[in-house]
Amino acid sequence: MLKLIIFLMCFGVIFANNFWIVNPGPKYPPTKGEVWPKPQYQIKEKTFYIFNPSQFKVKTTNQTCSILTSAIERYSYVISNKIGRRIRKRKVRAHRRHISAEGLYKGHLNELEITLTKPCEGYPHLNMDENYNLTVSATSTLSSPSIWGVIRGLETFSQLFYLSDDRNEIRINTTQIYDFPRYKHRGLLLDTSRHFISVTNILKTLDAMAMNKMNVFHWHIVDDQSFPYKSEKFPELSNRGAFDSSMVYTKEDIERIVEYARNRGIRVIPEFDVPGHTASWGSSHPDLLTECYEGNKVVGLGPMNPTKNTTYILLRELFQEVQTWFPDRYFHVGGDEVALDCWKSNPELQEYMKNNTLTVADLHALFMRRVIPLLANNSKPIVWQEVFDEGVKLTKDTLIQVWKYNWITEMINILSAGHELLFSSTWYLDAIKSEWPDYYSPDPRQMVYDVTQNETLLPGIVGGEACMWGEMVDDRNVINRVWPRASAVAERLWSTLDDNINYKSKIPSETYYRIEEHTCRMIRRGIDAQPPTGPGFCIA
Amino acid sequence: MLKLIIFLMCFGVIFANNFWIVNPGPKYPPTKGEVWPKPQYQIKEKTFYIFNPSQFKVKTTNQTCSILTSAIERYSYVISNKIGRRIRKRKVRAHRRHISAEGLYKGHLNELEITLTKPCEGYPHLNMDENYNLTVSATSTLSSPSIWGVIRGLETFSQLFYLSDDRNEIRINTTQIYDFPRYKHRGLLLDTSRHFISVTNILKTLDAMAMNKMNVFHWHIVDDQSFPYKSEKFPELSNRGAFDSSMVYTKEDIERIVEYARNRGIRVIPEFDVPGHTASWGSSHPDLLTECYEGNKVVGLGPMNPTKNTTYILLRELFQEVQTWFPDRYFHVGGDEVALDCWKSNPELQEYMKNNTLTVADLHALFMRRVIPLLANNSKPIVWQEVFDEGVKLTKDTLIQVWKYNWITEMINILSAGHELLFSSTWYLDAIKSEWPDYYSPDPRQMVYDVTQNETLLPGIVGGEACMWGEMVDDRNVINRVWPRASAVAERLWSTLDDNINYKSKIPSETYYRIEEHTCRMIRRGIDAQPPTGPGFCIA
Repeated sequence: MLKLIIFLMCFGVIFANNFWIVNPGPKYPPTKGEVWPKPQYQIKEKTFYIFNPSQFKVKTTNQTCSILTSAIERYSYVISNKIGRRIRKRKVRAHRRHISAEGLYKGHLNELEITLTKPCEGYPHLNMDENYNLTVSATSTLSSPSIWGVIRGLETFSQLFYLSDDRNEIRINTTQIYDFPRYKHRGLLLDTSRHFISVTNILKTLDAMAMNKMNVFHWHIVDDQSFPYKSEKFPELSNRGAFDSSMVYTKEDIERIVEYARNRGIRVIPEFDVPGHTASWGSSHPDLLTECYEGNKVVGLGPMNPTKNTTYILLRELFQEVQTWFPDRYFHVGGDEVALDCWKSNPELQEYMKNNTLTVADLHALFMRRVIPLLANNSKPIVWQEVFDEGVKLTKDTLIQVWKYNWITEMINILSAGHELLFSSTWYLDAIKSEWPDYYSPDPRQMVYDVTQNETLLPGIVGGEACMWGEMVDDRNVINRVWPRASAVAERLWSTLDDNINYKSKIPSETYYRIEEHTCRMIRRGIDAQPPTGPGFCIA
Repeated sequence: MLKLIIFLMCFGVIFANNFWIVNPGPKYPPTKGEVWPKPQYQIKEKTFYIFNPSQFKVKTTNQTCSILTSAIERYSYVISNKIGRRIRKRKVRAHRRHISAEGLYKGHLNELEITLTKPCEGYPHLNMDENYNLTVSATSTLSSPSIWGVIRGLETFSQLFYLSDDRNEIRINTTQIYDFPRYKHRGLLLDTSRHFISVTNILKTLDAMAMNKMNVFHWHIVDDQSFPYKSEKFPELSNRGAFDSSMVYTKEDIERIVEYARNRGIRVIPEFDVPGHTASWGSSHPDLLTECYEGNKVVGLGPMNPTKNTTYILLRELFQEVQTWFPDRYFHVGGDEVALDCWKSNPELQEYMKNNTLTVADLHALFMRRVIPLLANNSKPIVWQEVFDEGVKLTKDTLIQVWKYNWITEMINILSAGHELLFSSTWYLDAIKSEWPDYYSPDPRQMVYDVTQNETLLPGIVGGEACMWGEMVDDRNVINRVWPRASAVAERLWSTLDDNINYKSKIPSETYYRIEEHTCRMIRRGIDAQPPTGPGFCIA
């Protein structure tokens, strides 16, 4: 029984009345050709077309650009090789019409026609348009006013294919979809400081994000433990602060990652968390950090020293470089978990606070107030919620990321103050015992609405992020720890809540079957995702 | 703070007084040349030898056999390539003596001389001798009366090498070790029914077990969800019961796995769990299973039907085949989690129980009493604890595996009845939030001794097993879920308890540093283990 109990405790599985009866086979057999995240509007008929890789073509009708060309190339490969190969391995007979059941067979899929009605944008942004229309028939059509919408639509199109039960043919059902995201910022935070993550796995992560229609890669690139960002202006930062000389990201690595992401409609936002979480900066620049005291004795180095001009000079120079390598207008300056006790213990800072009648929280505010203007013109800062909590005056275009307990009150406070926010509190992927259903349920807008009944606050919640902190993940397990758990967050952020579902307690049962298909799909496309829910298998 | 709190909650990390001070770099920098599991007696001096792959030779002085030849070949490769390559990548200068500090350098390591004093045994067994003596000097010696001891000693020898701080040379310290295991059965259970695990990953698992001196691979090969054992006598069992025709273990696969294990001093014990956990048998042989009723309605199939002769006939035939493929004398017949409620619900069984004045637990006893004699002569059964609990009369050479709550009372009951047992209750690796420290502490003999103060009971605890049930692990994450968490169990089972340690609450701090080195060592040798404790990195 213990095995069963442990399993149920860990995963909260609902069991049938006769729970002594276990059926052979997978717990949740995968669906066939269902899309993840679920489209906003979808009509799917029972009739289907057969896919033959040698016959199928993708055409663009008017606009084109390099992002579109590269997306078509990429999805043609996925459709023909990752999907088409499943059948081509077997003997394909010329005429299959006879095996199609009950007149549902409507012919071969010939073509996908893509219509992009406006010029391509060069780089994805917070307010990009991601809506698209997709109609599947012998000549299928995909249209969008935006290159980003086309990319999302191509992903959806690729997910509609499925293997027939006899595994002899690839089918796609007659379908109409109109789709757009519920939230405009759908992010994944990856921490590359606690453990180094290779460029290869970052690119894989971007592939998986695209498969889940996530659009922001929040790169928590440096932290206390290591400084893998290889600055050209300050090479000593990584020379002394990286774990190893092989464990760094060069300008070329970063450019490659940014370009790879751009082609998938994904923004890359760097985070240089200050003034806390900066021990690794101290390996080369101990003078940046505050000496922490116990009585009269220095016992170590704490957060950056907010009273030294040299701190701000280095940050300005460094941020300038970072912003030339990362084109996104948003820049995350952190501001969380500042060890105020260290600042309090330091005699010089005590003196400074006394002379200026400042509390230690004021000191944090002062630091952030001086740091934010160091960013380039037109930059928009993102900060962790402490910066708001400690009363720093922030411009209206600052995004505040909510990550602590009491998140509903916190969100209401931030929204009421006229700010926009990102939600992360319940989406920490380092909570290792949480499985995808734990991440699936909480919808931040719904939570705020339930308390306030105030619809006008809701648009201020522009999105959220799943956060993969790096203490317990490295290059070997990061992919299977993130996926498919982050897929739950991705769907929550993309798809509209089903009104019939009490989002607090119940996940529609179809979701369990659908995430099995989605996980197998990720695996086929090179993402070593872990099993989502229980016993089962994927067919290559 | 939440990040910190979550982290501390999950991993029970002890922090320093000034917990606001975080140092850059790994949480626990790896040790250098420390052995896992810890040897019983070890004297390690500060003087060291330098390893040069081109100079080093392994010699055997008298006895030899194919297991020894293959072990020498394997460890020569590990020492020269997995260890030696780390230095050979860099420029090796001819004379290094000048860099050795304070006269600690004692010369080059020339040779390892292996003395095996008795003839090789062909197959490892419960009472095999695993003790060895190892002396490291310019001409090092390893001696044992047993091939299994030599294999354990070679593993230890390979673990003593380390990279110098400047990474310019491989060193090994002057060392004397006398070593033997605390428990004679040190197992790992792998479940290949909830998800299929490829032969490649089973072989990797055996490699990792050898690195951790584990000596029993408990192969929980079939269960409710799938039947991947490809029987020659009953091909329909896997034809209909496996997840897919590609997801089976053939005779050749099994022979390959058994031979690979044998060469590493690892026994392979198959488990065919009966009468419960057998839904997948029903895909081809529904007649084997009991019809479960709700009122007058059959609602599904439950455990095997204990009243039908045909059940026992099939089991006898199948077990005969299994026992020709698996040479170990032990055979695990399961007997856990039988859905007695299903048996109770079935009218025929109700009738049978009534006519024979049997309770439903008696029925379970009756089943096990009839199944155990189906094994070949001289076989020894292993059963889950329920079989003992339900009063089945068991021969003294039956091993009882304890896995439920109240394990101390259960162990005392089993031992007092004169039986031997395996302990697993606290070593379930599917408890995903448990990390290696959670598995490290409980010592089964110590637990029994604390309650009974009776030393005579203790030898009846012959060992234990870490259990990796397969609900949430498949080919993609099984290796990193098992390792290094199972390493904690491996060390508990091999090494003697340190008398100065209160095993209930405190893990010696050196263990944290040592498991980091051991994890990096496994990674270098091809085992994609996960980070053991926190931020850090491994040098390839």
